[in-house]
Amino acid sequence: MKQMLFEERISSLRNRLPENDVDAIWIVQPENRRYLSGFRASDLQITESSGSLLITDDQCLLMTDSRYTEEATGEATGFDVRTYREGPVEGLIGLLAEGNPRRLGFEKDYVTWGLHQELEKRLRELSAPVRLVPLSGIVEDMREIKEETETGALRASGKRLCAVMKGAIEFMRPGLTEREVAWKVEELTREVGAEMPAFSPIVVSGPNSALPHGVPTDRILREGEPIILDLGVKLNGYCSDMTRTVFLGDPPAEFKEIYGVVRSAQAAALEAILPGIESTFADKMARDIIHEAGFGRFFGHGLGHGVGLAVHEGPRLAPRKPVTLKQGMVTTVEPGIYIPGKGGVRLEEMVLITNEGIEILTPDPRVYKF
Amino acid sequence: MKQMLFEERISSLRNRLPENDVDAIWIVQPENRRYLSGFRASDLQITESSGSLLITDDQCLLMTDSRYTEEATGEATGFDVRTYREGPVEGLIGLLAEGNPRRLGFEKDYVTWGLHQELEKRLRELSAPVRLVPLSGIVEDMREIKEETETGALRASGKRLCAVMKGAIEFMRPGLTEREVAWKVEELTREVGAEMPAFSPIVVSGPNSALPHGVPTDRILREGEPIILDLGVKLNGYCSDMTRTVFLGDPPAEFKEIYGVVRSAQAAALEAILPGIESTFADKMARDIIHEAGFGRFFGHGLGHGVGLAVHEGPRLAPRKPVTLKQGMVTTVEPGIYIPGKGGVRLEEMVLITNEGIEILTPDPRVYKF
Repeated sequence: MKQMLFEERISSLRNRLPENDVDAIWIVQPENRRYLSGFRASDLQITESSGSLLITDDQCLLMTDSRYTEEATGEATGFDVRTYREGPVEGLIGLLAEGNPRRLGFEKDYVTWGLHQELEKRLRELSAPVRLVPLSGIVEDMREIKEETETGALRASGKRLCAVMKGAIEFMRPGLTEREVAWKVEELTREVGAEMPAFSPIVVSGPNSALPHGVPTDRILREGEPIILDLGVKLNGYCSDMTRTVFLGDPPAEFKEIYGVVRSAQAAALEAILPGIESTFADKMARDIIHEAGFGRFFGHGLGHGVGLAVHEGPRLAPRKPVTLKQGMVTTVEPGIYIPGKGGVRLEEMVLITNEGIEILTPDPRVYKF
Repeated sequence: MKQMLFEERISSLRNRLPENDVDAIWIVQPENRRYLSGFRASDLQITESSGSLLITDDQCLLMTDSRYTEEATGEATGFDVRTYREGPVEGLIGLLAEGNPRRLGFEKDYVTWGLHQELEKRLRELSAPVRLVPLSGIVEDMREIKEETETGALRASGKRLCAVMKGAIEFMRPGLTEREVAWKVEELTREVGAEMPAFSPIVVSGPNSALPHGVPTDRILREGEPIILDLGVKLNGYCSDMTRTVFLGDPPAEFKEIYGVVRSAQAAALEAILPGIESTFADKMARDIIHEAGFGRFFGHGLGHGVGLAVHEGPRLAPRKPVTLKQGMVTTVEPGIYIPGKGGVRLEEMVLITNEGIEILTPDPRVYKF
């Protein structure tokens, strides 16, 4: 059953090769690699690959080094695993001799300039009749539309995340530091049975909450200040992502107003999202409300992003670069208002686009009504 | 004081520009960025930069997007911070107009083929008189030799890591799962006051310990089996890295022998390391002992790697690609023997190369004498 899933993905990828004018594709990007093969390893950094795939019309090859051979063989059951000793370029040269492609697609947004140059040089030295063809987003596009098993995995991940959020909010009280709450989040992540946080938990309070991607500090939580919790977990490889803004005690009127504006903006976007609309339209629905309330210049980021094997993937919901939203996409909806030096409010849900609208994958009631 | 450190690094980098035939350098790699500017943000993925630097003969510019403007301004005090709205390529175009270089070095092992292409296209469209010059390892080379403040930071990081290792080993008992121990490690990481693990804790037992980079599973720890703990923490941005192999109860004779061989191999390498020797020589010292004991084919990875702002950096200690070891370098020494299906033993210390040999930065007595 599981194996069939990978076979279908490979077959769908193979169907896309002719239109991209290649007869094989080299997959280096870790989530693409996992999506196509089941090989779960991550890369510590871009210069330190734990493996890559060569997919031709009739072959599925996976190359890795000795550290990962055993895992790759166990996990990527549809692939023939090869172990290289001389680094990925020599490894790929060996694979190309087996697969024998003429026009090899590579992921231009992931392969470095240097790696491409090294590979081209070796191919020239060997007079290999292989042409390298830059490709962008082929597997990423496939990943944007979630299959049923994937929506199930994302729903499960979102559910665990809600339990983490609940526990973290119940734990919070004035006098704790941002960092202590962040650590509680990591503890809760374990307790709910997730593999790990999908990203370093963001717990930022008071003026720090004006930093959309701030890092938890030793700052002490105080009553009445906004505290942003932007959390995610990974479950069976699938990420989830949600944000709540919390006040311990009664907030000042200004932040009640800001909170209300953000909540309305989010509601408008959630209401607007349907298969067939443009991503920019959803963004505009939220942005207009924030703008009309006079906070336009305090909402600097896009409305949302896709979530799946990666915590940030397509589609992107932003003021520019429209994409048509489709059934099966999963996206965050996360407007925010950030007043430098004072603080910010962000609210984020992760939603699945269904045939008639959305299903919220982070169903959690911890939203204020003021 | 701290500001002076960054100024010295920048000045040292500027001195290297002429020999590389460039009059400016564009820094994208996150640890290089932090090393030169103090800007602490990490990148979620390579396609999602949180900023970059343009350093010319007389300017230090940092560009980022609105999410990070405030942090960048607070942290990179020697840099003029610019916020871009249209993505990093347009951002860089703006910076180039300010800095006005003619020959711009870029990090070829970090800039993707696609980003380079996009940038070159824009420069052509604008008829900008800027030539892009691929560079490799310039800042990485600087980072290999640690300054005194850095060795202090690494020493402190190693010390906390030893406390984590001690706590984890004391916590272990038959019946716990690998994953439970890994979570304990995360808890201990918090308790000792480190920011976060330097990498996902590796806790692998029995046959799983034959996977040099295995991921903790729900496998239950049993008596007599090898259990590898490969742990790291990050403290003030600086990583540490160490490995112990632990037995709960008495191990079988075979693993006592393997353990003894690995310990001897490590001792030989530690003994050999001095400023002026080749990295390959240190590797050979350890590898020869493992080979002579008949386990040569079960030691597939290199002897060690540098540690600093990144948990894996230069120098690399491996059978190939010799580099001369120098005073001020910090490296791991981590031989291992992995018997597929049975289990493995790895021992790892992080050491500073001093004028007369080494200082072990992970001083921890938990090594068996059999």
